[in-house]
Amino acid sequence: MQMERTLITNLNSCIGEKVRIAGWMHNFRRLSKFGFLLLRDATGIVQIVVEAKDQLDFLVGISEESVLQIEGRVAAEKNVASGYEIHEPLITVISPVTEVAPFPINKAVFNVGLEAFLDNAPFALRHPDRRAIFTLSAGLMAGFRNYLQANGFTEVATPKIVASATESGANVFALDYFGRKAFLAQSPQFYKQIMVGIFERVYEIGPVFRAEPHSTTRHLNEYVSLDLEFGFIQDHYDVMAMLSAVIRAMLKHLNTHHQQELAQLKVRMPLSPEKFPSIYFPDAQKLIHERYGEDCSNEADLSPQHERWLGEWALEEHQSDYLFVTGYPMAKRPFYTHPNPSDPAHANGFDLLFRGVELVTGGQRLHRYEDYVQALKQRGLPLEPFESYLSAFRFGMPPHGGFAIGLERFLMQLLGIANLRETTLFPRDMHRLAP
Amino acid sequence: MQMERTLITNLNSCIGEKVRIAGWMHNFRRLSKFGFLLLRDATGIVQIVVEAKDQLDFLVGISEESVLQIEGRVAAEKNVASGYEIHEPLITVISPVTEVAPFPINKAVFNVGLEAFLDNAPFALRHPDRRAIFTLSAGLMAGFRNYLQANGFTEVATPKIVASATESGANVFALDYFGRKAFLAQSPQFYKQIMVGIFERVYEIGPVFRAEPHSTTRHLNEYVSLDLEFGFIQDHYDVMAMLSAVIRAMLKHLNTHHQQELAQLKVRMPLSPEKFPSIYFPDAQKLIHERYGEDCSNEADLSPQHERWLGEWALEEHQSDYLFVTGYPMAKRPFYTHPNPSDPAHANGFDLLFRGVELVTGGQRLHRYEDYVQALKQRGLPLEPFESYLSAFRFGMPPHGGFAIGLERFLMQLLGIANLRETTLFPRDMHRLAP
Repeated sequence: MQMERTLITNLNSCIGEKVRIAGWMHNFRRLSKFGFLLLRDATGIVQIVVEAKDQLDFLVGISEESVLQIEGRVAAEKNVASGYEIHEPLITVISPVTEVAPFPINKAVFNVGLEAFLDNAPFALRHPDRRAIFTLSAGLMAGFRNYLQANGFTEVATPKIVASATESGANVFALDYFGRKAFLAQSPQFYKQIMVGIFERVYEIGPVFRAEPHSTTRHLNEYVSLDLEFGFIQDHYDVMAMLSAVIRAMLKHLNTHHQQELAQLKVRMPLSPEKFPSIYFPDAQKLIHERYGEDCSNEADLSPQHERWLGEWALEEHQSDYLFVTGYPMAKRPFYTHPNPSDPAHANGFDLLFRGVELVTGGQRLHRYEDYVQALKQRGLPLEPFESYLSAFRFGMPPHGGFAIGLERFLMQLLGIANLRETTLFPRDMHRLAP
Repeated sequence: MQMERTLITNLNSCIGEKVRIAGWMHNFRRLSKFGFLLLRDATGIVQIVVEAKDQLDFLVGISEESVLQIEGRVAAEKNVASGYEIHEPLITVISPVTEVAPFPINKAVFNVGLEAFLDNAPFALRHPDRRAIFTLSAGLMAGFRNYLQANGFTEVATPKIVASATESGANVFALDYFGRKAFLAQSPQFYKQIMVGIFERVYEIGPVFRAEPHSTTRHLNEYVSLDLEFGFIQDHYDVMAMLSAVIRAMLKHLNTHHQQELAQLKVRMPLSPEKFPSIYFPDAQKLIHERYGEDCSNEADLSPQHERWLGEWALEEHQSDYLFVTGYPMAKRPFYTHPNPSDPAHANGFDLLFRGVELVTGGQRLHRYEDYVQALKQRGLPLEPFESYLSAFRFGMPPHGGFAIGLERFLMQLLGIANLRETTLFPRDMHRLAP
């Protein structure tokens, strides 16, 4: 019976003890009389001092990333950052590596081009800084979920293969479904609305698919959407209050559980006031004109530059990294959007800008069947493809609303990373389908 | 400023108080001098006694499922099951229904054919018993996740659009990806294995897609897979121990958080010994021969009838609703399966039978690159489509394994439901793509 394995993160409580550790050979430096071996597991890196000549010779012959098991003694050592190292190691190879790595992942600065990184993702993601990004990604999902579980939301799993395009006919992937045409869901929009009729408050974390035929640093063709929808609201302000609370809870989760990764990646945590500031779309255009001299009052949307300016303003004027823009023109919003009753050309909806980039779209939805019929007609859309979805609205739906956060984009903005491909494990774009 | 809404589940602590409640008109019975209104929200049903003539006349005119708001007083009443009802209601219609429902959802016995049920799912899922099924579904996901979070697993989100078929070339949905052919992932198998190299222990809850061209009561073309994979194992017995612990944790979660739904659906909780019994495939065939008289020793798999017999045996002999069958013939297992070193024709893998139905497949995987090359060659499969996935194994992977639980099938077996379509919100089969 062999000794139980100790994770590297737990070694600090084993000073003086004999332990068994296992992991990847992160680095090996041989000096004249001894050598320093760095072993990496999922929880950290530890230095092992190798003195026996046979072990030194042995280690020179095996490559980095080989999987090793080491039995040794944990010794206090004030000259290493962790405060301890492993002495008198007995080293066994679990899984040897014979090939040379495409690039080193054991340097403090990880200087690899994006394409090379992505081509070699199964290997490159092992770099501790890359791993930390996805630890935080998991943390954001957990923070989202925990807050909603504690606030009466039920998790749902809705289909990703659907009979008709969700948002509109454009930018949707088609597939052959037993001889029929089917589509990949662009969002769980219709289903989460339907589920308000059953659970009142629902959420889903899942993949969404957008066949947008262009490559940008902030769009991918498949991404993870953090979706929620809830009923018995007054208007979109209830949705905005929920969104502020959810985002603050997600960040608090990181603060509580992932200090190590936040420090490692030098994350500048956002300024998140309890109530995020908000500006009405026409006022935002006015502000851009007055403050930045650009008249965009005849446009129906904000450009990325407009969003950056507004983000700048929110930070200066409201000490907030977030800004709600409400009341976008209805013409640019999807047909299920609820108009502002006192200004029907504008929506009871919002975008949330995070550090000057659109992060979330949400709002109040129509809840009466006849309003849907009307909205589809106005946009010249046929009723038929939406019929089975709209049946929910024939049988009593409360005023409701919701939003969707793009997980990878949130992470990108939070970490100050320039390209969404670095916050996605295995990104999918027009040119990339593998690994 | 209107009174805060009280959820029906919280009314028992409001006896004697004035409250505002909201929900769906579940039922209304008018007697000569008064009427009984049942209001349903996501948390329960409450009886409201209506006496005012104008309100009685008003209620007769509106249909079931209309969304109502009611202000009234909570009064103790020992003749109703909950112990209280609402008196002196002031009723407002939030969202009126004018259409007649396709079938009633307010009867104790819900007697609707499966096709009619599924065609009208957005409405039919409101039936409290149907809702309860999906509350338990959410509970199973939460139980799975909570256990793994507490045991060093990291959540990952892997792509569902992939460049090559995962398990084999058969039964995979193809789609047009910007002029190229792509596929829907049949499982996150390759990705979760790769991620063992980064996090050691990973899990994912997500949709998987199987283009199986046949309709059975226990197969669907899209379902939710509870996947995990972890490294530094000895062999598949470590994976089986993890699976037993995960399943027990999931059931414990239901016991702790969902007593109401378990009672409502009269769920017979499984006999789950701490160590689930296990039988080696050749021994299982021998047992079937001896006990049931059928010689299946030249078959490479178990039929559904064989599985039922084995389930029966496990229950009688081991007082267990679960049975591991280990050591299936390698010929029938996917190429990444690790053989039993002392009996290489059989796998270091398992199926878990739950009440005589296969619920989980899992086992130890190959972890050396050269073993993969060999395994593919032996099966006559080309190396090239798997190359970018296999690169992870060139650079040091520990012995690892994992499994996948089908969420809907677990729920089906747990609840004693005959058809998977009843434990899936919006099922997808050869003939059904909507709603």
